[in-house]
Amino acid sequence: MSRIRTDLALESSALQNVTGEIAGILMRQQQFGEVMETVVEIINERGAKALGRSIGRYVTLACAALSADELEPRDALVSRLRQTITSMVPGCGDVLVIGLGNRKITADSLGPKVIDRVIVTRHMGEQTPPGLKGRLRSVSAVAPGVLGVTGVETAEVVRGIVEHIKPCAVIAIDALAARETQRICTTVQIADTGIDPGSGIGNHRMALNRETLGVPVVALGVPMVVYAATIARDALSLLAGDLGFDCDKHAQALDALVQRVVDEQLGDMVVTPREVDERVANIAEAVALGINKALQPDLHEDEIPLLMH
Amino acid sequence: MSRIRTDLALESSALQNVTGEIAGILMRQQQFGEVMETVVEIINERGAKALGRSIGRYVTLACAALSADELEPRDALVSRLRQTITSMVPGCGDVLVIGLGNRKITADSLGPKVIDRVIVTRHMGEQTPPGLKGRLRSVSAVAPGVLGVTGVETAEVVRGIVEHIKPCAVIAIDALAARETQRICTTVQIADTGIDPGSGIGNHRMALNRETLGVPVVALGVPMVVYAATIARDALSLLAGDLGFDCDKHAQALDALVQRVVDEQLGDMVVTPREVDERVANIAEAVALGINKALQPDLHEDEIPLLMH
Amino acid sequence: MSRIRTDLALESSALQNVTGEIAGILMRQQQFGEVMETVVEIINERGAKALGRSIGRYVTLACAALSADELEPRDALVSRLRQTITSMVPGCGDVLVIGLGNRKITADSLGPKVIDRVIVTRHMGEQTPPGLKGRLRSVSAVAPGVLGVTGVETAEVVRGIVEHIKPCAVIAIDALAARETQRICTTVQIADTGIDPGSGIGNHRMALNRETLGVPVVALGVPMVVYAATIARDALSLLAGDLGFDCDKHAQALDALVQRVVDEQLGDMVVTPREVDERVANIAEAVALGINKALQPDLHEDEIPLLMH
Amino acid sequence: MSRIRTDLALESSALQNVTGEIAGILMRQQQFGEVMETVVEIINERGAKALGRSIGRYVTLACAALSADELEPRDALVSRLRQTITSMVPGCGDVLVIGLGNRKITADSLGPKVIDRVIVTRHMGEQTPPGLKGRLRSVSAVAPGVLGVTGVETAEVVRGIVEHIKPCAVIAIDALAARETQRICTTVQIADTGIDPGSGIGNHRMALNRETLGVPVVALGVPMVVYAATIARDALSLLAGDLGFDCDKHAQALDALVQRVVDEQLGDMVVTPREVDERVANIAEAVALGINKALQPDLHEDEIPLLMH
Repeated sequence: MSRIRTDLALESSALQNVTGEIAGILMRQQQFGEVMETVVEIINERGAKALGRSIGRYVTLACAALSADELEPRDALVSRLRQTITSMVPGCGDVLVIGLGNRKITADSLGPKVIDRVIVTRHMGEQTPPGLKGRLRSVSAVAPGVLGVTGVETAEVVRGIVEHIKPCAVIAIDALAARETQRICTTVQIADTGIDPGSGIGNHRMALNRETLGVPVVALGVPMVVYAATIARDALSLLAGDLGFDCDKHAQALDALVQRVVDEQLGDMVVTPREVDERVANIAEAVALGINKALQPDLHEDEIPLLMH
Repeated sequence: MSRIRTDLALESSALQNVTGEIAGILMRQQQFGEVMETVVEIINERGAKALGRSIGRYVTLACAALSADELEPRDALVSRLRQTITSMVPGCGDVLVIGLGNRKITADSLGPKVIDRVIVTRHMGEQTPPGLKGRLRSVSAVAPGVLGVTGVETAEVVRGIVEHIKPCAVIAIDALAARETQRICTTVQIADTGIDPGSGIGNHRMALNRETLGVPVVALGVPMVVYAATIARDALSLLAGDLGFDCDKHAQALDALVQRVVDEQLGDMVVTPREVDERVANIAEAVALGINKALQPDLHEDEIPLLMH
Repeated sequence: MSRIRTDLALESSALQNVTGEIAGILMRQQQFGEVMETVVEIINERGAKALGRSIGRYVTLACAALSADELEPRDALVSRLRQTITSMVPGCGDVLVIGLGNRKITADSLGPKVIDRVIVTRHMGEQTPPGLKGRLRSVSAVAPGVLGVTGVETAEVVRGIVEHIKPCAVIAIDALAARETQRICTTVQIADTGIDPGSGIGNHRMALNRETLGVPVVALGVPMVVYAATIARDALSLLAGDLGFDCDKHAQALDALVQRVVDEQLGDMVVTPREVDERVANIAEAVALGINKALQPDLHEDEIPLLMH
Repeated sequence: MSRIRTDLALESSALQNVTGEIAGILMRQQQFGEVMETVVEIINERGAKALGRSIGRYVTLACAALSADELEPRDALVSRLRQTITSMVPGCGDVLVIGLGNRKITADSLGPKVIDRVIVTRHMGEQTPPGLKGRLRSVSAVAPGVLGVTGVETAEVVRGIVEHIKPCAVIAIDALAARETQRICTTVQIADTGIDPGSGIGNHRMALNRETLGVPVVALGVPMVVYAATIARDALSLLAGDLGFDCDKHAQALDALVQRVVDEQLGDMVVTPREVDERVANIAEAVALGINKALQPDLHEDEIPLLMH
């Protein structure tokens, strides 16, 4: 069937068939409490071509229980977030956190919402509270807005800030589209590759990575929507399968059908949980906590939430 | 196929087949500029049973061009809103406007957002600005919250207020679910029947109508979502049709398939435009303007937007 | 000098001179960590007349260090809030929490902001999460809005809800005006007397107390503003004192002066911290936590913040 | 008495005494309907030194009636805003609008709120709606946040954007402090000098002007607060005057007194209208409308509000 839009390396259809050192793609999974961690490593151009993604490491933390208003899943997720970010960001030096997306569109607001809760310290200098002196890493955090609202390319705003601050690394937060609805607000992807053009809900036109910014870029994303067209495709696949239909033989006919549903009715529609506003707030809180724990290892467990505002 | 969830009388599947005085359902359509007005009248129990709705008049104002950032469609819609509301609400006496739904869930926030812009005058009395004296009808407006947030049945809160104010009519605003995605934020249904239990996105448990409140209740709703299950059903229908499949014969099999898609993946998911936050704000503005023009006929054209805040 | 507007019993000018059993007013203070607790008890009509307040117990929790972004002061305040509320609310039965004030005026938004974080359970019934069954007290929470926005008297909305729910007690949250700027967002007053008409920033016209609602009402308030006129009065007093001016002799002249400053320039102006938005969020969080701990004693320490949303 | 903090050139105490060509300061006033326009021109270094401000033109539009919920004052203000901005910005070329301040602190949120309503067109290119082609000037609009929240100097973010866009002019919006409470949300100052370091509520550390950005900068500000210390000073002045006190003789004693009131009680407190949230929204709407009319002269009267969102 036709290509499905997803920003998760884990959901790439090619991944199911082609892994192994020869193919250039390594994949391993491990359960940590409520969190299933999947690491996809693309080690050469061959793998990059097969998955349509840059060479690098893609860590996916899936925590289906996250939506259930319980304590443990969140703690497990935050813990893995901290470890993954720590493994991708240099141990010292200024860090710049960028919240991509549009604050006023709920499904695209993850980045700005995380930024609101990142502990920002770069400006403190002399004004650091006495009890915190010597224990804070220099962090700045900006939500640069989106092209459609500001009229300025996001990447250009970020580039200007990077040139001024000269951080040792950038962490870019973005809302993603996924293939499966269960991933919405329950899965986090962290990649050391930066952000590709055209990815994310906001469809950035320029990449944010080491090539464009000159420093390592860690991309952290959470699926917020599934495109409605994906649901239509899934329904058709299921039906075809159930009716003993030969999908390979009729692939073109099915693709044409999906296209008709999309054109006639679905357009730019997305599938999302009804209570997405609350769930994006929860996952933003967890992501920010993970980032803060990774970037401020010298703060006590109890100090971090207080400083998050 | 199995029953599709919709709050629009216009989309009732029965409507396509059964109209006419004998069936108890009258239907007529008229184009007003960019707005297509459809009036469905259920005139007896027979019609009520066929459509699964109360006896009464359901006016649907559809304005597909509304999303296109143009002036005329909005003006046409506001004008029809004013006329329809005027035709359903007594010409004098206190009016109470109720904004149903959850302010913090975008797809359910239409009611509270409209309430924010309704001109409220009941409390003014002596403090009415001199220039407005004698020209204002007494209006109050309350967003009572939802059961899941307050722990109190919405209808009970409304009943308490009605008993105190004793209005001549209640206008209840609610976000709806529709069958077709094109209706989202482009269609308004106004009914003189009040609100049924289980309708609206919030699924109110108790009816808001003349029986429960003791005064006429005008229900005004706008579709905000389509249930994701509906998309799956549409895709299957289309496929079945295209493949020369006999839907009637395999109805049960198709229903079972849809159920599987829903159970496995769609759950409580809804389909919505990506930029729903902006579109609900726009339609709330238009609805409030229509209500204000209907309830405050003695205000000048230019005074109303200013008083809307 | 002329009477200063304050909602804190602790700041009543009469209190400084007249206490003791004969006067009908008892007062005691105790330090709990960072929190200074002052209990003013008005035990008879004589005391009530002297202070211009109802007979009852007024507990003031002052925590000047609260604004300093530290952990301990907040914990100490939450702990005293829990104990005070527990001592004023019956040990079992439904509780209704009312958030007075206008959500859209920052200085008046404390009540609605607290309501957003109170754990609401009354509607759960069968749907209580399995792990919480038998451990939750029935609580509902409503922010009824203000007369100027809804056109309906707040107290009438509350009365309707009370008649329906028949709670064993009402807790009413309100933003207050104080005499001293240091009290803003750092002091909480909890009184078992309910709320008087004309108190709070919103100037409610009808009392919320046992007489009007038929059940005990605990009033919980936090100063959010000092009226600008108060600052002018303080400056004049200070000057008069410093210049060896006999205030008693020139009291009328001073009063007239203050009136002129107020009329000419201050009107409805209030004095408030520049970052009041952030501080009201912080104190609302602490107040909600205190209420939740008092009303849900069977929840574990860690469960409460998660359920607060 | 000691220097009073104000960001309005019009309120400079020196201005009252020293104007004229020799002094280097020209001042003229004209009434336009409800709006009093005052133009202060500083024409040489002597005038600059006397007022403590840069050489340039400061236009103040005062509209006391603005708070009265009437139509005409707003229209008059918008009209003068358009004309003043038109006179300060080149007739063609890209314009960058910068909204300074902290969106989450109401008193400091004017800049971001105006930005939300400026018509942004720079990114449209091919996607310009057909009806608008050839009629839109290229405009971009950014709210860069404040140092205390992002950790990055605002001016550096702006400089990066200016270097990328190379606009013909920058318009910088900011919330100001004034000396008189009547100015709050009723007065707009537009200056062709850019923004000085230390001005505005947010106290920017670096200037935004032609020297630092390389292009002309128009500074547009609205007073949002009066520092509470100012009120204390006013009260003392008034008292001293009334009591036949020789202010010049006792200036030091008065200054010391004010300092005591400030130290003991006022600190960082500000005086603001109780309903500042609503009033900042109203003035932001008027300012954005004035900017849009100035920058998009080829749009029809009715099109502009619709495009403002």
